[in-house]
Amino acid sequence: MKKEALSVVKIGGNVIEDQGRLTEMLSIFSRLKSPKILVHGGGKRATEVSGQLGIKAKLIGGRRITDAPTLEVALMVYAGLINKNLVAGLQAMGCNALGLSGADGDAIRAHKRPVGKVDYGFAGDVDKINTGTMSSLLSAGMVPVFCALTHDGKGQMLNTNADTIASEIAIGMSPFYNTTLFYCFENPGVLRDRTDPSSVIRQIDSVKYRELLAQGILAEGMLPKIENCFHALKKQVPRVCIGDLHMLQPGHDEYTTLTL
Amino acid sequence: MKKEALSVVKIGGNVIEDQGRLTEMLSIFSRLKSPKILVHGGGKRATEVSGQLGIKAKLIGGRRITDAPTLEVALMVYAGLINKNLVAGLQAMGCNALGLSGADGDAIRAHKRPVGKVDYGFAGDVDKINTGTMSSLLSAGMVPVFCALTHDGKGQMLNTNADTIASEIAIGMSPFYNTTLFYCFENPGVLRDRTDPSSVIRQIDSVKYRELLAQGILAEGMLPKIENCFHALKKQVPRVCIGDLHMLQPGHDEYTTLTL
Repeated sequence: MKKEALSVVKIGGNVIEDQGRLTEMLSIFSRLKSPKILVHGGGKRATEVSGQLGIKAKLIGGRRITDAPTLEVALMVYAGLINKNLVAGLQAMGCNALGLSGADGDAIRAHKRPVGKVDYGFAGDVDKINTGTMSSLLSAGMVPVFCALTHDGKGQMLNTNADTIASEIAIGMSPFYNTTLFYCFENPGVLRDRTDPSSVIRQIDSVKYRELLAQGILAEGMLPKIENCFHALKKQVPRVCIGDLHMLQPGHDEYTTLTL
Repeated sequence: MKKEALSVVKIGGNVIEDQGRLTEMLSIFSRLKSPKILVHGGGKRATEVSGQLGIKAKLIGGRRITDAPTLEVALMVYAGLINKNLVAGLQAMGCNALGLSGADGDAIRAHKRPVGKVDYGFAGDVDKINTGTMSSLLSAGMVPVFCALTHDGKGQMLNTNADTIASEIAIGMSPFYNTTLFYCFENPGVLRDRTDPSSVIRQIDSVKYRELLAQGILAEGMLPKIENCFHALKKQVPRVCIGDLHMLQPGHDEYTTLTL
């Protein structure tokens, strides 16, 4: 039987923080054919709220540590403020959004990252996507909207990278749906020249990726994103793309497609 | 056809704030027969967070006004912090909880309270319970956990009293389920003597209610709760009870049942 198409769309903090861009994104996303799943990052709002609450960001080797107060802020800002405003915005556009963390419906089970050289605190590495919960919601015509939080099944919420959540959802759903994973960010795709938005590299396979790496063309921040893409492709996600929100519009073909 | 039984359980802020009582509540609730719906209040945490963020509570005539910063705190604390911790706690006990605001799945539509003598700000009065969304989730074996937030369908989240949300859900579901509405709070029921927990009034009908009112026996805070109960009964909710969390345990009969 031919699998139904499913879009898993990740949007970053930069989209969320710009009200004009956010409205455009919600409008484009709401017109995208269902079934579809949205995954959102946190953006600077969590840092702002932490600052206002007098919680200092703990960084080790440039990586943020999720201590208990930081996790509380993540719960407040990601699962509360941002998630509910996105859901209400999508509902206003006729998209039957339903906001979730990984704990809701046991959608995404994770484990606390083991303490090695670094103790990342309440950071979760994904173990399992609950495809039953996802399918129930999608079949009921709902559009799951995920924030970047998971749980360990023992009562503990955990902070998980939103790009990772998106790829894990796409991987989990691929046996049942013909899944496309879209990473939406501020640029129209992976750029050959970071200062020139028209320099989108239309296709990157693993050979080309090594080439670009060797040439030092890729922006630092792109590397984990592209690694997530290749991970998803290796785990049988049929289609993975990087671009700005226009990538979700029919007829638009100026974005980066990743292939193995 | 005989309707299936449904429990709608409201828990107050006092239960949420006491970790021991909360664990006991989650344990008792998780053992309650499904289908069931949990509705939770906010408690003092929102006030604390508001204070830490330097947001002053706006009160007019003793009633809290939901201005824009207060609504943001409600989104953060009710829909984020409290809701997700409750959901993760229930999941740990094998209860397939899924947290929702009224915007999620368009579950509870409301309108902003019209400005009269008082402008209550972003306070929502409930218009409609989406029984389709509720039934989809319940049929999929999930346990909806509602925080006290609704939306207006035009992108605006609204603050709504949790007791009211519980009664409106019970009213909305009663045509389809044999619904019991449980108001769980710190006392074992409505007390004849506020200082004596053994003085539970087992049954209150509207005649008895007027009697108790005339005698000045009822605590101030009980009046809106009891009004909500009578409203639900008048709107065909078959059974409405007030008591502490033990009310949800089989065999326990020391609580207050309201009748018309």
